[in-house]
Amino acid sequence: MSDGPRPGFSAVDHAELALLLEVSGTPKPGNVDRAHDFATLRFEQFLAGAVGSRPGLSAAAAPDGPGVGRAFERAVEGMAQQDGGNTQFGCLLVLCPLVRTAATGALTRERAERVVESTTVADARAFFEAFEHVDVAVGDPPPDLSALDARRGAAAGEAAAERGLTLDDVLRRSAPHDGNAAELVRGVPRAFREAARLRADSGPAPDRVARAFLRLLGDRPDTLVATEHGAPVARDVRDRAAGCAGLDDAERLAADLRERGVNPGTTADLTAASAFVALERGLPV
Amino acid sequence: MSDGPRPGFSAVDHAELALLLEVSGTPKPGNVDRAHDFATLRFEQFLAGAVGSRPGLSAAAAPDGPGVGRAFERAVEGMAQQDGGNTQFGCLLVLCPLVRTAATGALTRERAERVVESTTVADARAFFEAFEHVDVAVGDPPPDLSALDARRGAAAGEAAAERGLTLDDVLRRSAPHDGNAAELVRGVPRAFREAARLRADSGPAPDRVARAFLRLLGDRPDTLVATEHGAPVARDVRDRAAGCAGLDDAERLAADLRERGVNPGTTADLTAASAFVALERGLPV
Repeated sequence: MSDGPRPGFSAVDHAELALLLEVSGTPKPGNVDRAHDFATLRFEQFLAGAVGSRPGLSAAAAPDGPGVGRAFERAVEGMAQQDGGNTQFGCLLVLCPLVRTAATGALTRERAERVVESTTVADARAFFEAFEHVDVAVGDPPPDLSALDARRGAAAGEAAAERGLTLDDVLRRSAPHDGNAAELVRGVPRAFREAARLRADSGPAPDRVARAFLRLLGDRPDTLVATEHGAPVARDVRDRAAGCAGLDDAERLAADLRERGVNPGTTADLTAASAFVALERGLPV
Repeated sequence: MSDGPRPGFSAVDHAELALLLEVSGTPKPGNVDRAHDFATLRFEQFLAGAVGSRPGLSAAAAPDGPGVGRAFERAVEGMAQQDGGNTQFGCLLVLCPLVRTAATGALTRERAERVVESTTVADARAFFEAFEHVDVAVGDPPPDLSALDARRGAAAGEAAAERGLTLDDVLRRSAPHDGNAAELVRGVPRAFREAARLRADSGPAPDRVARAFLRLLGDRPDTLVATEHGAPVARDVRDRAAGCAGLDDAERLAADLRERGVNPGTTADLTAASAFVALERGLPV
């Protein structure tokens, strides 16, 4: 492992590079990657999304910045300045608190959890406003929470503010059905674990990223797949990913998921978060 | 042409995105691209190089910044923080003055030429110092100019300063054998011309970029190829590129150049510059 320092790279630089490496690892079954485009969502739109998210990521890193909720909303606004729509919404949701954690001290699970715990009502409002910038696939909320349906955007933010909910509160309510929220309220455990594996792996960074994606996909059902196609499909995809012996097997899974329009997007989000932690700890590129 | 504004993107953002699009266009015969790596120089190292170059690109854009020579040296320093060595030295040499031009007023050939004309002795010194960060392929200088051999890095910068040479002076001396220098002292005419073609083209941005590369390669001998393999090889590559009917033909040329280790790097540099101008003028992504 030739883990050397990358002294000129800030947490913001590593977050952007994590987004670029995430989309470059191939195959990442069901997702856009270096070798796969979708009909209306293309590789270069992820490149532009990564560049566009920088002002928001920089706001997340700023000690006197606007807080992670507003930073996230700005990152999504910038990300959306390409013609593909939602490229990295979930990635940015996980990255913004991690960038803040890394920019303000040691990048540890404990500190990441405290960053999320200390979010405010204003952070929650900004989080909902981020949904105004792009169409994001989210499931139907329970009837008693329909006012907080994220698809309502700023109106849901108003409703959350009226109830005095912080972003941490909102994420705790989403955690049962959203893998990113579940990670954020627990100090992003899967990303920290996977970062260690990324660093212990060998070979080019994008290949390591593709193997990390496959491990994460085989480890737990993807919640975006569950939202869009139901829990049984998500479990089936998990089992098939767990059965892949390597990236060659994953190519076959990729072809099948592409044909069926099954997109394990939450797993891609956690892959980007894992790459960020690994880069901060010296993953060679 | 759906050329819309990208209001949140600065000249620095467009320069970084131009670097990312340049390496994503495929095939770009003889160069690393979305579908091709070299044994010791890989796609992801260009991604990291693009991210790493941002502080330098930002310095080029700053009205009270250190000047384009020092900005370039910083961009190269940041670019070099990956394990592949020289990824985008020539791209950054052309982009830094263009970024300064765009960040300080209208992006026109006339203004770009004035930005280069107004460079100083300090810019020349910093330019030579940039060669300290990576190995760059340059030809032997004439005997009377051996003190200014760029491979001598800072020592060449000292020699240039003793002679009172500005960066413009240095580029004028290099123009006969370096396509990037030739462009810079004349207001980057090929990049502005190619930017118009990029915008008038249709289809995904990386495909447009690959076609732009092929046009530029078929238009004039690549000076890096001439430096490394001699003028006849550079002319042969030009003729073969001019004979390509499209990207399928270019795949065959790519396979041959790769096998022979022929790398038309200067043409890639001008492709990135063309993409930058096109993005500033609304190239859709």
